[in-house]
Amino acid sequence: MIQSQEKPDRVLVRISDLTVQKADEVVWVRARVHTSRAKGKQCFLVLRQQQFNVQALAAVGDHASKQMVKFAANINKESIIDVEGVVRKVNQKIGSCTQQDVELHVQKIYVISSAEPRLPLQLDDAVRPEVEGEEEGRATVNQDTRLDNRVIDLRTSTSQAVFRFQSGICHLFRETLINKGFVEIQTPKIISAASEGGANVFTVSYFKNNAYLAQSPQLYKQMCICADFEKVFCIGPVFRAEDSNTHRHLTEFVGLDIEMAFNYHYHEVVEEIADTLVQIFKGLQERFQTEIQTVNKQFPCEPFKFLEPTLRLEYCEALAMLREAGIEMGDEEDLSTPNEKLLGRLVKEKYDTDFYILDKYPLAVRPFYTMPDPRNPKLSNSYDMFMRGEEILSGAQRIHDPQLLTERALHHGIDLEKIKAYIDSFRFGAPPHAGGGIGLERVTMLFLGLHNVRQTSMFPRDPKRLTP
Amino acid sequence: MIQSQEKPDRVLVRISDLTVQKADEVVWVRARVHTSRAKGKQCFLVLRQQQFNVQALAAVGDHASKQMVKFAANINKESIIDVEGVVRKVNQKIGSCTQQDVELHVQKIYVISSAEPRLPLQLDDAVRPEVEGEEEGRATVNQDTRLDNRVIDLRTSTSQAVFRFQSGICHLFRETLINKGFVEIQTPKIISAASEGGANVFTVSYFKNNAYLAQSPQLYKQMCICADFEKVFCIGPVFRAEDSNTHRHLTEFVGLDIEMAFNYHYHEVVEEIADTLVQIFKGLQERFQTEIQTVNKQFPCEPFKFLEPTLRLEYCEALAMLREAGIEMGDEEDLSTPNEKLLGRLVKEKYDTDFYILDKYPLAVRPFYTMPDPRNPKLSNSYDMFMRGEEILSGAQRIHDPQLLTERALHHGIDLEKIKAYIDSFRFGAPPHAGGGIGLERVTMLFLGLHNVRQTSMFPRDPKRLTP
Repeated sequence: MIQSQEKPDRVLVRISDLTVQKADEVVWVRARVHTSRAKGKQCFLVLRQQQFNVQALAAVGDHASKQMVKFAANINKESIIDVEGVVRKVNQKIGSCTQQDVELHVQKIYVISSAEPRLPLQLDDAVRPEVEGEEEGRATVNQDTRLDNRVIDLRTSTSQAVFRFQSGICHLFRETLINKGFVEIQTPKIISAASEGGANVFTVSYFKNNAYLAQSPQLYKQMCICADFEKVFCIGPVFRAEDSNTHRHLTEFVGLDIEMAFNYHYHEVVEEIADTLVQIFKGLQERFQTEIQTVNKQFPCEPFKFLEPTLRLEYCEALAMLREAGIEMGDEEDLSTPNEKLLGRLVKEKYDTDFYILDKYPLAVRPFYTMPDPRNPKLSNSYDMFMRGEEILSGAQRIHDPQLLTERALHHGIDLEKIKAYIDSFRFGAPPHAGGGIGLERVTMLFLGLHNVRQTSMFPRDPKRLTP
Repeated sequence: MIQSQEKPDRVLVRISDLTVQKADEVVWVRARVHTSRAKGKQCFLVLRQQQFNVQALAAVGDHASKQMVKFAANINKESIIDVEGVVRKVNQKIGSCTQQDVELHVQKIYVISSAEPRLPLQLDDAVRPEVEGEEEGRATVNQDTRLDNRVIDLRTSTSQAVFRFQSGICHLFRETLINKGFVEIQTPKIISAASEGGANVFTVSYFKNNAYLAQSPQLYKQMCICADFEKVFCIGPVFRAEDSNTHRHLTEFVGLDIEMAFNYHYHEVVEEIADTLVQIFKGLQERFQTEIQTVNKQFPCEPFKFLEPTLRLEYCEALAMLREAGIEMGDEEDLSTPNEKLLGRLVKEKYDTDFYILDKYPLAVRPFYTMPDPRNPKLSNSYDMFMRGEEILSGAQRIHDPQLLTERALHHGIDLEKIKAYIDSFRFGAPPHAGGGIGLERVTMLFLGLHNVRQTSMFPRDPKRLTP
């Protein structure tokens, strides 16, 4: 066991660096045993390091004893080993490995950390496309088994790619906003009152009292705007105590949140948010092509398409498109999930984009703090954004006038006492502002064409899952 | 009220751009009324935009009526106004404003958002150095008043600088780690079991069961290491249900967390973490000099000093220094807060650094998952890092062997059933690894020489404060 006994000057070579340039060199590699197969006096191992792997051969001869070959053959899969070996060019490409032109002729092997003999799931099964499983009757791994054994499931090339890609979304989000002059803020997750009326919040025992988990950082973002930070963003957990067991709901997810003061029109903010998403999409396509292709191998899908500038439709236009497709809907009715998806398909056909903005929602279907439209009292200055027909962002111009905010809260039957602190935030001069919140896991899922948000949350939380 | 009625093509000029280059131009500015002072037929206003301000003059004459001057004089402080005016060079520098060479001769004024007449605190009082308050008997603002009215307190030049500086720490942390090949991860905050024995955790009602708020992302960081991500970091809230009412404890703070697999010795990780902090310190001194100086005006302090490479002392060396200074301490005794501070002063005297690492803590004072020292069973492979004599990071090599982990848990009297999932994470091959968690608010506080962590948390949470 490595207990930091010493600091040897041995260099460990990366598997991705094992190419013909290193032919005939003696190298040390630390890797997992992906597979091992003994065959007479030989043992073939596939050694894996993240998404890279190489074939290694232990053969009885000058450098390896019979015992050593036997020892190699008995190492459990997924164990971590240190191997000394000679890099040899191979005559025939090794199709099953990422390092196709070389193999490693093993001279020494040490086990660094041994895996238990029985794995709860096989990595090769876990990366098999579902269609191969169905058509060829080969094993695949179901979602609960994956999630129950997440430490192993996350080792697959698909999982490695999904979460490196997701790390990239966060990085691009911040990079773009910092370049635009935004300030990153940190907002509290434990709050004293449920700001939106009390439904769907988790209760926390806070010393001798009760507190709640924030359903969004919105109030705090707005307070930062009232405190003159002008343009702010935050990335953090958002908690929803909804008993929804769907492919796209989690009880805890990561919100990418934006709030911004504007000069005259909330479209200044809509454009800034849409451009931020476009910069993210471009960055992903430029910097994460390998990851996208790796995920596509297991989950094939069409490349993600978007326009510049982003398509912005008004809600009434969307209604007209849906009605033309035979859907009956009232003017002030919200979109159902199937209608959202249908609309996504209609928009894709007509405009060839997987990303668009739906603007000017009916006032009746939006929260009390949404600014009404100045011309049509049935509409509001609010918008959603969609990827592949599913909502990824909801946002609006917020009411910054305490009097109008009070009126709208009363109209919604909200207890003014409970939102006093919220309304009071606007009493000492508040600039007009708008914002929105993006669901990180949904963006990852929809860009990559995955089918369940649990695939894009490392340790998902839903009404039935709290572990690992 | 701006309700997004129109999209005028009027350009709003930034106050920071009002210089002699713009002399005699007519400009529009949106700003807060910082102060206003009527004097006969004139009204002098100070207009503020974040940390910048400019003098404006409304005087009865060709461009301004008597009514307009009266109107200007009656606008409440902190209201947001749009002003059209001519930029005029002044003969005598205006010492009280950041734009010292020009003033604005007002032609038109619109109130965009009116502030209530009585402010709960005055911004000028809120930025006054405490010593001026004490020696000259001038008003300062106490901490509870600030925090109760945080929307106003955050508008001061000091607060603006503190939180822009803090945004910079997060940015530098991520920038450095992404350049080093780390992957950003998102870890769940709602967990099913209290991993470290159950003390100091907040309980959450989770549908029909109980859950807990994570005291640290450590288990999840370690699982990512076991899942081959090799080097990971995360930034997120950390919850501690400790009834500690001190200058440096919060019940919710932001953790900057690192975890990393290493080859042979945990010092590989210690060096990587220390270098990350050094890169942050350098970046702050390079990019945030204005903010540092702004904070220094209200809270004077010595510039932050650090060495390259970072000073690393062993715990026994620190004990010797303290004993030489007259402190009596046992070999396996932990450092008290006063002794930490004293040690900080001794280290500063001897090595001229405000930042250092204390390595090889006694095993007895560290958590059960800490790797014991391979040579001395009373010591451990663990470390803390200090800024100006206060701890900002605690870390260690973690035990990656399930058998040793079980032994150590039993030794600590921990119920194995409760940590089964934790131990099981290491059963399928785990690389040696180490890591640590940094408290964001403490780093901000100590670098800037502030005295209370509530100054560096926008909306602090402690046993007695849950609002705003």
